[in-house]
Order: sequence, then C-alpha cells, then structure tokens
Amino acid sequence: MQTVFILLFAKYVKYIDPLDDSRRVYSGTDYPLFQDVHLMIFVGFGFLMAFLKRYGFSAVSVNLLLSAFVIQFAMLLRGFLTVAFNETGLFSIGIPEMISAESSCAAVLITMGVLLGRLTPVQFLLLAFFETLLNVVVEHFVFNYLHVNDSGRSLSVHTFGAYFGLAAALVGHKKNVMEMDEHGGIHHSDLFSMIGTLLLWVFFPSFNAAIQEPEDARHRAIMNTYLAMASSTVTTFMISSCVDDLGRFNMIHIQSSTLAGGVAIGSAANAVLYPYHAVIVGVVSAILSVIGHAWISPRLERTFHLFDTCGVHNLHGMPGILAGLLSIGFAYFYEPESYGKTLYHIYPYWVGGELNGDRDNVSQAQYQAIGLVVILVTAIIGGLLTGCILKIKVWNQVDDPDFPHGEMNYYAQSDVNFLSKYKHAQEQQRLREREQMHEIY
Amino acid sequence: MQTVFILLFAKYVKYIDPLDDSRRVYSGTDYPLFQDVHLMIFVGFGFLMAFLKRYGFSAVSVNLLLSAFVIQFAMLLRGFLTVAFNETGLFSIGIPEMISAESSCAAVLITMGVLLGRLTPVQFLLLAFFETLLNVVVEHFVFNYLHVNDSGRSLSVHTFGAYFGLAAALVGHKKNVMEMDEHGGIHHSDLFSMIGTLLLWVFFPSFNAAIQEPEDARHRAIMNTYLAMASSTVTTFMISSCVDDLGRFNMIHIQSSTLAGGVAIGSAANAVLYPYHAVIVGVVSAILSVIGHAWISPRLERTFHLFDTCGVHNLHGMPGILAGLLSIGFAYFYEPESYGKTLYHIYPYWVGGELNGDRDNVSQAQYQAIGLVVILVTAIIGGLLTGCILKIKVWNQVDDPDFPHGEMNYYAQSDVNFLSKYKHAQEQQRLREREQMHEIY
Amino acid sequence: MQTVFILLFAKYVKYIDPLDDSRRVYSGTDYPLFQDVHLMIFVGFGFLMAFLKRYGFSAVSVNLLLSAFVIQFAMLLRGFLTVAFNETGLFSIGIPEMISAESSCAAVLITMGVLLGRLTPVQFLLLAFFETLLNVVVEHFVFNYLHVNDSGRSLSVHTFGAYFGLAAALVGHKKNVMEMDEHGGIHHSDLFSMIGTLLLWVFFPSFNAAIQEPEDARHRAIMNTYLAMASSTVTTFMISSCVDDLGRFNMIHIQSSTLAGGVAIGSAANAVLYPYHAVIVGVVSAILSVIGHAWISPRLERTFHLFDTCGVHNLHGMPGILAGLLSIGFAYFYEPESYGKTLYHIYPYWVGGELNGDRDNVSQAQYQAIGLVVILVTAIIGGLLTGCILKIKVWNQVDDPDFPHGEMNYYAQSDVNFLSKYKHAQEQQRLREREQMHEIY
Repeated sequence: MQTVFILLFAKYVKYIDPLDDSRRVYSGTDYPLFQDVHLMIFVGFGFLMAFLKRYGFSAVSVNLLLSAFVIQFAMLLRGFLTVAFNETGLFSIGIPEMISAESSCAAVLITMGVLLGRLTPVQFLLLAFFETLLNVVVEHFVFNYLHVNDSGRSLSVHTFGAYFGLAAALVGHKKNVMEMDEHGGIHHSDLFSMIGTLLLWVFFPSFNAAIQEPEDARHRAIMNTYLAMASSTVTTFMISSCVDDLGRFNMIHIQSSTLAGGVAIGSAANAVLYPYHAVIVGVVSAILSVIGHAWISPRLERTFHLFDTCGVHNLHGMPGILAGLLSIGFAYFYEPESYGKTLYHIYPYWVGGELNGDRDNVSQAQYQAIGLVVILVTAIIGGLLTGCILKIKVWNQVDDPDFPHGEMNYYAQSDVNFLSKYKHAQEQQRLREREQMHEIY
Repeated sequence: MQTVFILLFAKYVKYIDPLDDSRRVYSGTDYPLFQDVHLMIFVGFGFLMAFLKRYGFSAVSVNLLLSAFVIQFAMLLRGFLTVAFNETGLFSIGIPEMISAESSCAAVLITMGVLLGRLTPVQFLLLAFFETLLNVVVEHFVFNYLHVNDSGRSLSVHTFGAYFGLAAALVGHKKNVMEMDEHGGIHHSDLFSMIGTLLLWVFFPSFNAAIQEPEDARHRAIMNTYLAMASSTVTTFMISSCVDDLGRFNMIHIQSSTLAGGVAIGSAANAVLYPYHAVIVGVVSAILSVIGHAWISPRLERTFHLFDTCGVHNLHGMPGILAGLLSIGFAYFYEPESYGKTLYHIYPYWVGGELNGDRDNVSQAQYQAIGLVVILVTAIIGGLLTGCILKIKVWNQVDDPDFPHGEMNYYAQSDVNFLSKYKHAQEQQRLREREQMHEIY
Repeated sequence: MQTVFILLFAKYVKYIDPLDDSRRVYSGTDYPLFQDVHLMIFVGFGFLMAFLKRYGFSAVSVNLLLSAFVIQFAMLLRGFLTVAFNETGLFSIGIPEMISAESSCAAVLITMGVLLGRLTPVQFLLLAFFETLLNVVVEHFVFNYLHVNDSGRSLSVHTFGAYFGLAAALVGHKKNVMEMDEHGGIHHSDLFSMIGTLLLWVFFPSFNAAIQEPEDARHRAIMNTYLAMASSTVTTFMISSCVDDLGRFNMIHIQSSTLAGGVAIGSAANAVLYPYHAVIVGVVSAILSVIGHAWISPRLERTFHLFDTCGVHNLHGMPGILAGLLSIGFAYFYEPESYGKTLYHIYPYWVGGELNGDRDNVSQAQYQAIGLVVILVTAIIGGLLTGCILKIKVWNQVDDPDFPHGEMNYYAQSDVNFLSKYKHAQEQQRLREREQMHEIY
C-alpha cells in the first residue's frame, strides 16, 4: 500500500501555494488548531485505549500505525473527490487537508475502541482500509451533496465510527476481552488512560472548531464546546455517584462520559447561539452516556453478545446521534437572521446565498435528518460487511477457536506479540519440543 | 448547582461577537495561549498532584471535577461584576473570559494541593465554592479599584490559593497523609508527577502572558518568565544537592522548586525590562523554595501541626509573596518613560493616562503593597472560615476520629472510593456481618 | 556558571522591542511554534529517555537540568556572535532566539541519549558545556559563512549531536547499561517512553518549520515533515515485522524509527517541492533506521565496543547524514525558478539576490556537501576530546573500575542517587560498618 501511495502522490498531488491561495492556510491561524487535533489523535486516542493492562503498549502503537496509514490514504481519497482533480487531474494539499485527514483517523480509532484486544494489527489495517474508503465517500456525499452542517464531524466521525465498529463486532469477535484480565484497569493503566482522557478533554474545542470559518463561527464552536464539556463533566460525576449503590464514582464513567458533551455539541457547535443551550446539551449528553455505561451496555452484552471494549457506544454512539438530532433542532428553531452573513458558511444552500440555494428552516432540518440516517445506515452496513471480511481465515486471527485459552493468554501476555497464525503454530511446536528436551534430561 | 448555572447562563449570558468587538478575541492570537493555560490546569495540575501512591487517580479526577465546576461558576461571578452587566443586565463571554475562568481554577487547585488526601470530593466542592466566591470578589477589588499590576496573577492566584489552603489546614485536618504511605512517591507515581511538573514548566510563560496586551508587554511576560524558569531550575538542582548531606538531588525539590521562578516573576512579568533581572528573580525564588522545603515546612509541621501535602507554601506561598514584593520594587525603581505608551496598560492610573490617574512611582508602589496585604488578609480569613465550615459534621468526612486507622486505610486503598459518612458506616456494618458469618461456619 | 550567566545577561543582553522590530516575533505567529518545540525538548526528549527501568526519573530530571542550563548558555553564545553585538556591544533576544536556544538543547539531549545511564549529572553538565560551545560556533560558521540550507537543523542538531555522543562513547564508558537490567524496558516504562515518542512525533513538523520564513517555506516544511513522518511510520512497522523471525513488531523500532522521517527530511524540509518526494524520504529513512537497529548497532557493539543506549545512531545519526545528502541533491536537481522570491530565503547566496551571491545549482550543492563534512568532522573531534575530558578522575564517575559490580547496582537502584565519588566511598564505609554491627549482634 505504501508503494501505491507513493505512486499516487507522485502522479496527482501538489502543495498549495499559501501566498496565492484564497483559503485560510496560514500557519499563524490554522496550524495551532491543527496541532491540537494532531495531539488528540496520536496521543489522546492512543492513551485513552491504554487502560487494558495487557494491551497498553499495543493500543498505543497500533493507534500510531493506523493513524499514519489513514492520514495518507484519506488525503488521497479526498483529493480524488475534489473539483480541482476532476478538472485538472491534479489536486493540492495544505493544512486544511491535514485536519480533514486527521478526522478520518478519529473515525477509525473510534471503531478500534470497540474491537480493542480482539483483532490483530493486520486485521486492524484491513478494517482501516475499508472504513476509511467508505467514510470519505459518505462524508463527501453528506457534506457536498446534502450540504449538512456537521461542524465538529459528530455525525461523519463519531456516529459513523461507533456504529461501524458495533456492526463489525456483531458479526464476529464475540469475546469479552475484559473478563480475561478482570476488567483490566489496574492503577497505573488508569493513570495512563487519564492522560488520554484529559488530552481529548482539553483539545475538544479545537477539534470542533478546526475547520470552521469565519471567525465568529469558529469562536462559537470553541465556546459552545468548552461550556458543554464543563457541564457534562460536573454531571458525569453526579450521575456516576447516583448509579453506584455505595455512592462511589466509577472510573470508567469519568474516563469516558466527561467527553460526551463535546461529541453531542459537535454537529451544531458553530450554530448554537446561546451559552445556556450548550450547557444543557452537556448535561443531557452526560446523563445519556452514564446511563449507557450502567444499563445499556450490559444489556447489549447479554442480549446480543455485543462486546464494546471501550464503551464506544456510550461515548461516541449515542451522543453522536444526539448531536444529529440537535443539529436538526437548531436548524429548525433558530432565526436565520441571527447569523448575519455567516449563515451561508453554516448552511451554504440557504435561500439567498451565492450557491442560489432554496432552503429554509424546514428543508434544512430535513436535510440534517437525511444526513443522520445516511450516516447510520452506511456505517452499519459497512461495518457488517467489514466484520464478515475480517472473519475470513486468510488473515491472521486472535480468537481462533483451534487455540486453547492458554495460548490466547500467551498472546495477551506478550503484548506486542503480533504473530501470524502460521508462525504462531510454528513457535508452539518449537516450545513443545524444547519442553520435551528438558523432560528427557 | 449545575441547574442554577443553567438558569443563570440562560438569563444573563451571551457570546461576544468577535467581528465587532474591539477586544482581542481572535482565535489566531489568544486561543493558542488559552490552550496552553487549559493544558496546565487540567493535565499539569492534575498530574502534579498524582504523586501520592494511593491518591493518584483521585487527584487527577477530583482535579477535573473541581475545574469543570469552577470554570462555570467563575465565569458567572465575573460577569456579574462587569460594567456591562450593571448597565444592561447582560454580559458577554469570549476567549479572555475563558482564560480568567481558568485562572480561578488554578487558585482552587493550589489550595487542593495543601489539603490533598484529607478531604472528600464533596468537601473539595464546598471549598471550591467558597474560595472562588471570595477570590473573584477580591481580585475584582484589587484589579479594578486598587489598579494593581499582577500580570501573571501571582498575587490573586498563587498567593491567595496558597494561604487560603494553609489557613484552612490550620483549622482542621491535622493529619499527615504522607506518614500513611511512607512519603508516597513510588517510582511510577514520580514519573506521572513529572508529567505535571513539566507541563506546568513548559507552559508557564503562556500563563503569565495570557491576559497581557499590547504585544510588547506580552512579549516581555513570555521572555521574563522563560528566563526566570531556566535560572530557577539550575539553582534548584544546585541548592537541592547542597542541602542533602550526601549531595543527592531531592525529587520533591525538583518537582516543585523548579517552577518557583515562574511564580516569583508573575506579578511583574509584563513590567521587568532587563533580562538579568528575570534571571536573578529565578535564582532567588529557587533558593527560597528549596530552603522552604528543607527547613520551613518541617518546622511548620512540628510547631503548628500545619500539614501541607504538596508543599504548596514553598512553591506558591513564599514565591507569591516574593512576587508581590518585587512588583512593589519594580513600580518604584523603574523609569516610567521606558515603557512608552504601554505604561498605561501596565499601570492604568499613572498620571497622564486616559483614566485621568494621578499615580507616580511612590503611589503606585504603595497601591501594589496594599494589594499584597489585601490578598494575604482575605485569603487567611477566608481560609480559616472555610476550614471551620468544612469541619461541620454534616458533610462527609475522611478523618473522622470515630473511625479507627484501619478504616482510614481502607478508604485510601480504594482510591476512588468517595463514600459519604452514612453509606460508609452502612458498608462497614455489612462487612462486619459478613465476617461474623465466616466465623460461624 | 549561573552567576556568570547573570553577569553576562546584565552587561550584554536586552529585549527586542516587538513593536519596532522588523523580524517576525509576534506571539500570534511564532509563539505557538515555539511552544511546540518547547514541549518536544522538555517533555518529549525527557520521556523518550525514560524507558530504562532504573533511570526513568533521572533521565527526565537530568533532561530538565541540562536544558535549563543550555538555554541560557546558548542564548548568550549566539548573542556574542551576532552582528549587533560586534557593532554595539549589546544584543537583543526575542522569540526567535528562544527557538534557537531550544535547538541547542536538542543537540545535547541527543548526545545524552547515547551515554544515558553511564554518566553522572556533573559529567553531563560538563558535556553540555563543551558540546554547546562547539555546536553554536560550528552552526554559526555553517549557517552564516557557508550559507548552508538546514531548515530543520538535521545537520547542526541531529547529526552533530549523534556523532558527538558516539565519539565520546568510543573513548570511554564502554559499559552496556542494558545488560544490567535485562534490556530495561518493562511494561510501564515503555508506556512512559511512548509519551516521549508521540510528543516528538506530533510536534516534529513544528520543529522543522519553526525558524522558516516566509509563509510558503514554512508551509512546505510543515507538510513535508508530516508526510515523511507518516510514511516512515508505516514502513517502520512493516520492516520491523520483516526483520523479526517470528514476525513480531519490536518496540525499540517503534519508539525510534517512526521518527526517522522527520530527521531525514529536516535539512531540506523547506525546499522539497513535491509531496511524493517527502513520502519517499520517509520510507527510505525508516528502512535505514530499522536496519541500523537490527544489524548495524549490534555490530558496532561487538566490533568497537561502542554502546549506544538509546540507539541514537539509528534515529539521529544515519537519518541525519541522509538529510545532508538529500539537501545536496535537492539543491542540485530542483529548478531554482520554482521557488519564486522565496529562493533567497532558502539559499541566500544564490545569484541575483540582495547579498550579491554567485551560487548556482552546482556550487550550492557543493556548499551543502562541505557543510555536512564540517559538521561530521567537528562533531567527531569534539566528541573524542570531550570523552577524554570526562574520563579525568576529578569529576565524579559512575563506572569507576574500583567499585565492584554490586555497588554499581546500588547506584542504579537508587535512581536519583547522584553521589560524588568521595561521598559515595564514605557512604559505602558507613554501610559496611553497619553490616558488621549486625553480624556482631
């Protein structure tokens, strides 16, 4: 794949010229926001998934591998869908393209959170390939044909990634990794995981504001996310203590539901006009997320044998759908005049804009709803198909039924031991022979 | 409280319009500095306090809870004190208000450092409520009535937070948490704690420069803090080795005194004109801080039973007072002409400015001194009163004398076990019954 | 030294006035990039070197000490070489000087990586003194006399630091620290080390772009580094799996070779015009780096007894030389017209510029080659001399042959136990006496 990437980059890609490009690409304004997002993807997501005692290092390193792969792949895919490529056979990349590429990583990493501990790196790479392919195409359709407002990409990244992963988990890999190491989370891993949580917490406003313009939309995206995060954090602690029968805080809630506010405000972060709306969204999303952890996830495990290692459904899934619903509501209820000229940046097809759109409150709300449905349907179908592909015995597998439980543990203990099935069998053979040697002497 | 916040946000708060606001709010200039401060508060302070073996996770998560609470509360309180609110009944928030809200968090987190391991989360929330209330009002008085220059808020944040906490510790909670786990600090916790130290170290220039304007004052604030940090670090290692009878470095000094330079330069970071002054301030503050750790803190523990878990007095207390004294000196000795027009940004009431002030070297220095005294007196009185309130048996307590030492340990071991007194008693009862069952069979 | 620094700062240094300086110093454009670099130096390098189980804390804290020392020293040294100092006896410092000072830290920290675990802090300080002195002078010669393009300082920082350290290691300190603790890397230390790796990974584009101007050169430096990092990461995983006979990923490769792309693209990061060139550079550098870890380092250890604790030769050494070779190639093969006016920022002595230069493709390529040779020769000679100085028995030593292996371990266990030789001997005496006491009773 890396060789193919080189050929495609050679043939079709050039750099923008920041001096004569009308887009905002200057290092002084967009680059600091890019760096915040960059830190979230590579350090934040990596360490958030490091909480399983035996998968700490592999979570962080597979996170790095997948992101480095998706960055290049998504950049190429997006380029092939641009108008410039259609017209000239070439497309150019700059800082905004880097930000978009990182958001495709986020979708794959969210899916990885569902399946963590149950796939080999090779399977994760395959998953990343199919998911990115589908995600970029769907996002292109939703953004550029449906003209849906999804500023923080809560639909195209969080909702898509979560339901893609859940659908893939439904097809196969019905193994509860958590059982194996008694709910993972030892003391130190929890602290490592908190590094991830806090980096995502701190930079979520940048994630939701990174691709926003002009200044007032970006400013609103920052402020709304900030307030929603703060209120969802306070609410998470409160509800977490309420659902525990001894009033204790649950560290899984703290490491996940505190972020739900940022996901739920995501789609409309640039559109919400009143601070208290953002605060309410934060409160509602945290309640939803903690209830999900406490009651919905255990039920999904029992009823559908749907195992969700990192509780992605409660952090990205349900708050993502909430974000979609809110984006419908905000398009419908807000007065369009309040936005001034920025209106056409948020809803480009609103009546009276440069694109000669014909939308009003009702039709924009309808399009937002269609966008949500398209994302959900494609994510679930894509996930199911990818799950089937990953079950094919050609790729190396972790949860091979031929391997007894002890060998599974062996894999888990060695942490970076990413053996192919064939080589694994070879090694087992060798170990057995050595043991026999010892018995003889 | 969260519900009250929603109502207040709904009734009184709106967003600034960055396009027609004359203040600097643009994401390109202030937002990166805000993010640096944001990272300090949520990751830096959290991990700095993670060094106690058994409180690692609770330090980081209570840090998150308190900060999310104080952000909203301080934003509302500050708003109610603005001129705009007085005139129109509404006030607006933007990136500068976010930076100010974070600084209120810092004051509470510094206080938390004194009392770490000795209060329950509910008590910490009460503490945060009273401290933030007082801190915002006092800061308003010192900044807007006394017109004191306190650029990095070394007075209103560091000094206030430290002495508020020490006063609260004097009233009650006379328990040395450190004894319990043999001075805490195991190897890994020390590395986690170093994450906190280094993040605070790295972003201190941003903290001291975040609310500065115009450009030359901000630039001076950055450079002065940078140089003071560098020299205080080299000095800390040197003095730490000197005070140890085997010449070893003490990791507590390294994790705390290396930051003293940033605190001590804080109040006048925008005003110091010569690089070597900043370097000297760093050296003096590090000597003061290491001596504090080595000789003053043990004496306070013996004489007044004043236990200071994180050594806050040596990092924020004494260097904070030093900052106050330096701000008096720099106001008195520097030639006002050197500042050019920036003078009125630093000292708004200086004679000849827009506010028709009448201050000169002497009177400005006097006001700086009054500011220091006001901060110290209100912090100590407020801390004493809050300490008394926290001793009321209504709130759940950690160091309840009715509970024997073993149960204390139980609490400590479970790390995130934030039981209310009532529920704790219930659980003890249940455990005792279960033990009796075992004895019978 | 700190006192000398104060005197020198007092006599010769002033701040720039950002309002009337024509250089770019504004906090909105350069400060965020500086902060990225700052985070790399103090947190990234520190934690990258924390992987040795027994040296975790000392690696992070000695990293802090050396950096704080070098910042001040390098700022002064560079100032004494400026035109302004020559003419007026004074020089001024601002944000660009801070960035340069941090890059001098990087050179010293790279050298520290070679010798990690084998020198005492006092020896490291001496090393930092000599290396910084030589590095600043050589860099001044290469940049301002040879007018070599070395945008990300891959020559003056990475290559210089690596070969300086290797030469110093060749002279003495022939002790494999790794043996002692069975290849170090326990689970948690690996995760700490990944914090370092990932921070360096994330901020490498800022490192290579920090001192670039104008906007298009900076933009290219960011994009090229980003692409080279992504492709070198994917390649590292692939090659690492290939060189292992069981197909496993090697965590040492992941923690080091993933960064090789950033080093290799460094010198010409501002000059590379086509995205696929950057992608290819990343692939080649990763192959080189993994092969170095797998085959070249073990051979150097066996043949020359050259121990390289952190594998610096494979991350900074060989990719640094590759960067130098690439900078020759890009100067030779690229059309100068493609750069437009930026040409004279990249190659100031090109024919037709303000400096009345006379260079063309061939001569610029020759100068780039001379620059590489000068860096290599001075680094190796300087390293050899410094290695000899460090062997003098006056300084306190770790690997003193008089001390049996057990005492070595004692030193290693205590982690922050930086005893002078004399005091160490005293303490040994005391321990022996105490043991005899125990034997008697």
